[in-house]
Amino acid sequence: MLFYEKYIDISQEVLKGFKENSPVIGIDSTILSNFSYPENLKRIYEIEDKIRSNGGVPGIMVILNGRLKVGVSKDELEILAKMEFLTVASKKDIPYLILKRESGVLSFDSALAVGILSGLKVFLTGYLTCDKNPIDINKYIYKDLCEYSFNNIAVISSGIRSEAEMNLIVKNFETNDVPIIGYQIENIPIYNSEKIAKVNYKIETPSEIVSFLTIKWELGITGGVIIFNEQFDEKLEKQEEWKIINLKNLTKNIKIATTIGSEIYRIK
Amino acid sequence: MLFYEKYIDISQEVLKGFKENSPVIGIDSTILSNFSYPENLKRIYEIEDKIRSNGGVPGIMVILNGRLKVGVSKDELEILAKMEFLTVASKKDIPYLILKRESGVLSFDSALAVGILSGLKVFLTGYLTCDKNPIDINKYIYKDLCEYSFNNIAVISSGIRSEAEMNLIVKNFETNDVPIIGYQIENIPIYNSEKIAKVNYKIETPSEIVSFLTIKWELGITGGVIIFNEQFDEKLEKQEEWKIINLKNLTKNIKIATTIGSEIYRIK
Amino acid sequence: MLFYEKYIDISQEVLKGFKENSPVIGIDSTILSNFSYPENLKRIYEIEDKIRSNGGVPGIMVILNGRLKVGVSKDELEILAKMEFLTVASKKDIPYLILKRESGVLSFDSALAVGILSGLKVFLTGYLTCDKNPIDINKYIYKDLCEYSFNNIAVISSGIRSEAEMNLIVKNFETNDVPIIGYQIENIPIYNSEKIAKVNYKIETPSEIVSFLTIKWELGITGGVIIFNEQFDEKLEKQEEWKIINLKNLTKNIKIATTIGSEIYRIK
Repeated sequence: MLFYEKYIDISQEVLKGFKENSPVIGIDSTILSNFSYPENLKRIYEIEDKIRSNGGVPGIMVILNGRLKVGVSKDELEILAKMEFLTVASKKDIPYLILKRESGVLSFDSALAVGILSGLKVFLTGYLTCDKNPIDINKYIYKDLCEYSFNNIAVISSGIRSEAEMNLIVKNFETNDVPIIGYQIENIPIYNSEKIAKVNYKIETPSEIVSFLTIKWELGITGGVIIFNEQFDEKLEKQEEWKIINLKNLTKNIKIATTIGSEIYRIK
Repeated sequence: MLFYEKYIDISQEVLKGFKENSPVIGIDSTILSNFSYPENLKRIYEIEDKIRSNGGVPGIMVILNGRLKVGVSKDELEILAKMEFLTVASKKDIPYLILKRESGVLSFDSALAVGILSGLKVFLTGYLTCDKNPIDINKYIYKDLCEYSFNNIAVISSGIRSEAEMNLIVKNFETNDVPIIGYQIENIPIYNSEKIAKVNYKIETPSEIVSFLTIKWELGITGGVIIFNEQFDEKLEKQEEWKIINLKNLTKNIKIATTIGSEIYRIK
Repeated sequence: MLFYEKYIDISQEVLKGFKENSPVIGIDSTILSNFSYPENLKRIYEIEDKIRSNGGVPGIMVILNGRLKVGVSKDELEILAKMEFLTVASKKDIPYLILKRESGVLSFDSALAVGILSGLKVFLTGYLTCDKNPIDINKYIYKDLCEYSFNNIAVISSGIRSEAEMNLIVKNFETNDVPIIGYQIENIPIYNSEKIAKVNYKIETPSEIVSFLTIKWELGITGGVIIFNEQFDEKLEKQEEWKIINLKNLTKNIKIATTIGSEIYRIK
């Protein structure tokens, strides 16, 4: 029997969003650990505000004193933003952090897991990345595949962080029939790489993407999709840090995420 | 909620077959793209007729103007057989082809998926093959494993197309506990190869194969099996094209498929 | 529909254990094939007696004349212990052995499968091992992962048999979010190896391990955990055979298994 309410607090704003089929957008909270205070707080507020101004509901996820949070208050965000050392929790770590009543930010794989348990269907992320292999740290492993294979979700992403990670992720998506959709683009964006890998389908409009998802899920072909969107101007990238670029491209995708999200929660 | 009737047309012949627990045999439609018109039409009729004369119901699968078909009329087959360029749809492609109202043949992995959604339990195929890895096209990936791992189906196959594909497929079957049954044979047939790999169990009669499946599924060990049957005379192979040999061996397996099929739909 | 009662006999002692939420401990029966008669019988009785004296119920699993057994009588154990050639059945083999009314011991992967079908939640095993790859016998494959990924079980193990197997098992556990718990230890015990690999969480008490499992499963994060416990004195190992050491360390873990088991069957 599931008792996830025992462990997860869903904010009033997110609950209201679910009730009204609003585009609740799942986001991990690594922005808090990637920037230092008070910049981290400012940047996460900007993301939340931009989601709201596009008609969406920000579903940022954290763990605070052993309670999982979907939708986080300003006070709660401030507590985390000020912490000197912030644990980045992977999916596997969640029961342990609850047990120890610890606090931390959720990485994308654990945000996917907690979001899915809570009913989220649309997730927004920067570049997709892999995890280090615990045995051979020169190699990657890709851990999010179970979420994609078994859950009807849409993930809007800026691209893939590196060629090595691209090889592993694309092979895994292909083997497991996870469609790679390019929103108005033909190639998967790979950070700082000239290599080209094609998306499976270039789709021109958000409503066509929603139709694609409706058909897939009504037909019973379970599983998520990844949607890549155009990156911002390449030349800018050379002058800026990875984490800034990652965030800029994520921000650029808010509009498409809320547009798709405004339909996706109506699919039964 | 599933609405697969919105997307799949099941023919009257197949529906009648289901109702009467007849051996409905799932077949992909790549015969249509492997041969040119009118040979492709003639050859697919031959397969259908031989299934019927063995007491079975042919469940050929295609997509026509965005409608999936299980059991295809002569008129529909003719439309596809005459097309100059025929899309070969993989499982992942199905929602996109429905969205775009396109037509095409179904490869074995998508025929498995559509067949399983429609209630088919027995599939007939030629040699098992892998797909090209989209990233490293000198390597293969094997995509059908989810269908085998999670669905109670029996696939009757002529063998495996090459040693490289055999290595990948057998390793995947072994890792995922998919039994490899040899119907009256001890070795997995590999096309044009001297290499020998053993089946897991040599079983002498169709009724014993059905008993094996009944035990497996009643016990709750979910998942499909692959059944290999003897190839026709090796010497003939040297003189003929791959696609002809593939089809001859598939045809040779119709009798065992319908015999097993006549029992398998009664397993609850 | 499942009819597993048609194929599995659960002993009165195990049924009573289930009814009373007693710590029923699943054990494979390879002790019978690893030692010769009458030593094998003596050693398996010792394990059973030690489980009982710790308040547990031994759930040894075998197949006898095509009947699966969970909890085996002295007479039945004696029949198997005396057999000259004992089949070691893998999960995949079970339907075939039932079909042929054969007898044999269950390897750990098939004991996991039969145990899970029967309702067991706690398993005790020696060192974790991999299987030989049927195609490239210099390589291993790891077959138990499906049981860990999809079932809420706890496996108490002595460690991993070799570095090569450790690499494969740890990578698979990590990729699939199976937590590796160290009961009062920080490193995964690897037989006869200086190599060090960390557990995910060092947990100090059995009740904390049970809390971890309760949180994980109530939250809906499906899947098992592996719990490693301290090995006995390293110096002793040099003087003894692998199979003796394996059994000694398994015996050492009975107390922790029954302690965890006395709580785990109460988790809903």
